[in-house]
Amino acid sequence: MTQLADLDTPAALLDAPRLDRAIGRMQQRMDTLGVALRPHVKTAKCLEVARRQRAAGARGITVSTLKEAQEFFAAGFDDITYAVGLAPQRIGAAFDLVRRGCRLKVVVDSLAAAAALAEAARREDASEGLRPEVLVEIDTDGHRAGVAPEAPLLIEIGRMLGDAGLLAGVMTHCGASYECRGAAALEAMAEQERARCVRAAERLREAGLPCPIVSVGSTPTALFARSLPGVTEVRAGVYVFYDLVMAGLGVCAPEDIALSILSTVIGHQPDRGWVLTDGGWMAMSRDRGTQAQALDQGYGLVCDEAGGVLEGWIVNQANQEHGIVEHRGGPAAAGDVQRRFPIGTRLRVLPNHACATAAQHADYAVVEGQAVKARWPRFSGW
Amino acid sequence: MTQLADLDTPAALLDAPRLDRAIGRMQQRMDTLGVALRPHVKTAKCLEVARRQRAAGARGITVSTLKEAQEFFAAGFDDITYAVGLAPQRIGAAFDLVRRGCRLKVVVDSLAAAAALAEAARREDASEGLRPEVLVEIDTDGHRAGVAPEAPLLIEIGRMLGDAGLLAGVMTHCGASYECRGAAALEAMAEQERARCVRAAERLREAGLPCPIVSVGSTPTALFARSLPGVTEVRAGVYVFYDLVMAGLGVCAPEDIALSILSTVIGHQPDRGWVLTDGGWMAMSRDRGTQAQALDQGYGLVCDEAGGVLEGWIVNQANQEHGIVEHRGGPAAAGDVQRRFPIGTRLRVLPNHACATAAQHADYAVVEGQAVKARWPRFSGW
Repeated sequence: MTQLADLDTPAALLDAPRLDRAIGRMQQRMDTLGVALRPHVKTAKCLEVARRQRAAGARGITVSTLKEAQEFFAAGFDDITYAVGLAPQRIGAAFDLVRRGCRLKVVVDSLAAAAALAEAARREDASEGLRPEVLVEIDTDGHRAGVAPEAPLLIEIGRMLGDAGLLAGVMTHCGASYECRGAAALEAMAEQERARCVRAAERLREAGLPCPIVSVGSTPTALFARSLPGVTEVRAGVYVFYDLVMAGLGVCAPEDIALSILSTVIGHQPDRGWVLTDGGWMAMSRDRGTQAQALDQGYGLVCDEAGGVLEGWIVNQANQEHGIVEHRGGPAAAGDVQRRFPIGTRLRVLPNHACATAAQHADYAVVEGQAVKARWPRFSGW
Repeated sequence: MTQLADLDTPAALLDAPRLDRAIGRMQQRMDTLGVALRPHVKTAKCLEVARRQRAAGARGITVSTLKEAQEFFAAGFDDITYAVGLAPQRIGAAFDLVRRGCRLKVVVDSLAAAAALAEAARREDASEGLRPEVLVEIDTDGHRAGVAPEAPLLIEIGRMLGDAGLLAGVMTHCGASYECRGAAALEAMAEQERARCVRAAERLREAGLPCPIVSVGSTPTALFARSLPGVTEVRAGVYVFYDLVMAGLGVCAPEDIALSILSTVIGHQPDRGWVLTDGGWMAMSRDRGTQAQALDQGYGLVCDEAGGVLEGWIVNQANQEHGIVEHRGGPAAAGDVQRRFPIGTRLRVLPNHACATAAQHADYAVVEGQAVKARWPRFSGW
């Protein structure tokens, strides 16, 4: 059995017990709320992780690229929502997945995209009659894409899709939840996401259009929603690993974070209190997601090799293959860094943003204590 | 012949004429200064790019990981400097490359690392007698790693390496040049880098130690150095593509940048003046290197599909697979974004930091006008 000590660095570690706890916590919460969970696989991009989510009770998956849809479909996941507005150039690939048996749902928020899909469906009808289901994206927080719940445009898009037999429902993602502070604000944001998306569904139904699917979600709103009447499913992604941004929001503790980057000390600048490691931004990503939070974690929070948080130590600077670990209190608080962190010392670093950090790596070393239980590949690209 | 219009998005484009001009400019400058150019291949991580640099006159390459060293050595590059402090765990892999015929140079800045190398060399001598050459890293700007030029430690490390027959010279990288403003500051920083590194070499020689190699470099100092007496070679990386950080320093113009990310418009928020594209941070990286510069370029400067800069338009926000293109002047200046950038419109985006953006992609589409001349793979990982 491979041991932690055998791994080359930098390496992406997945703490297996933490992963299982995170999957169980979210599934249990969704079961309690009485909604289906459709995990977003863009965080891990890993078949083994998604299989664990499915085994725990998840129904279907969410993807951020058609490449993910293709990879997961090839591995037997056949109920897939592609949650990024469908570009016209990808309509052919979407229909191809459906033709091969994938229950694919795609997303639009414009008449132009709806018209292109309706046109493709009409062409397709002449041959086989299969088409993706289409969800209209709803803007519930002014944060990114989507149609306002009260906009006349919603009914126009709905009608165009309905006439073509494509309309399956509405979906939203409340990215503004990442900027909420405290439980009360998160609960309020979850309710806003729910209420506005359900309102959009009601408007479609009042117009005589079908709207069986009402899909909402983000990790913070999923975990802080008090109840979800009118919602049929929740999508959430980063909960599967958690990260420091989530910890900063109060969604988890640093000790819940399943993903970390194993690094090695390669040098020091004792006068500055610096510990240089081989975990630079190529290993951590350039994500500085905690920069605007109350506690800026730099490029990551430093733990010992076993995963115990070293209070006050962060990767404060990063170059491509150099991390600079410093104590928040500066050189005085750092003390004798050469004695505390000799060259060759191995550290784990918890990431700001699991999606971004994981994307820098080709696989995960799945660890339990000192044992490396498996290497799970992840994929990337488009 | 594949055309630009045939490419799926997002995709990393390399403008072939710009690439050739960048390679030619740096080589000519180094020829004029009378020093060897040893390009840092960590920016492109691409054999075809390095072959063009070699064909233009580069002597040897610089790498940031042993994986790069192994890949390039396997492709016939046998003069390689691994410019990140050697971790003890990698000594075996370094000796292995040497044993197979690679003229590998490695870097240390501590007695601990020097001692580990000397010990390995003594063990090795019993068998084959081959060993890497070792450069002592010099800190010329207080920016990252290295020994101060005047430190007693320099001579101690030099002696330990010299006694083991390993000492080959000194090297430095003046990363502080990335924070310089204006030509005068860059020229001064180039001279500081040169003078302090040459001083370290002189101290070693005064102590009776060999120091044939004096290696300095960063793209800004390489291009702004007035003269380089005492220096034997220059290392520079990002010049091969340039990027917006370099443009912000005055090292190049945006129109010199060879790397761009082709993206497709997938939606709008007309009231906010937003154009949504499929070029999110997964395609651009999370690098916000221009944030602290005079002109913050967001996640990248927007060009039309042919590569012409669209003045005032930047990717102002990014999620994993969504870019939000906005005009600097806000919604009023943006005008009718649906008419100007209809869904399906294709844009090129110039990156802040070529090393980080390129690392998000598995290959480059090499373009000349509308023609895609080749796909060049790049590698990643450790």
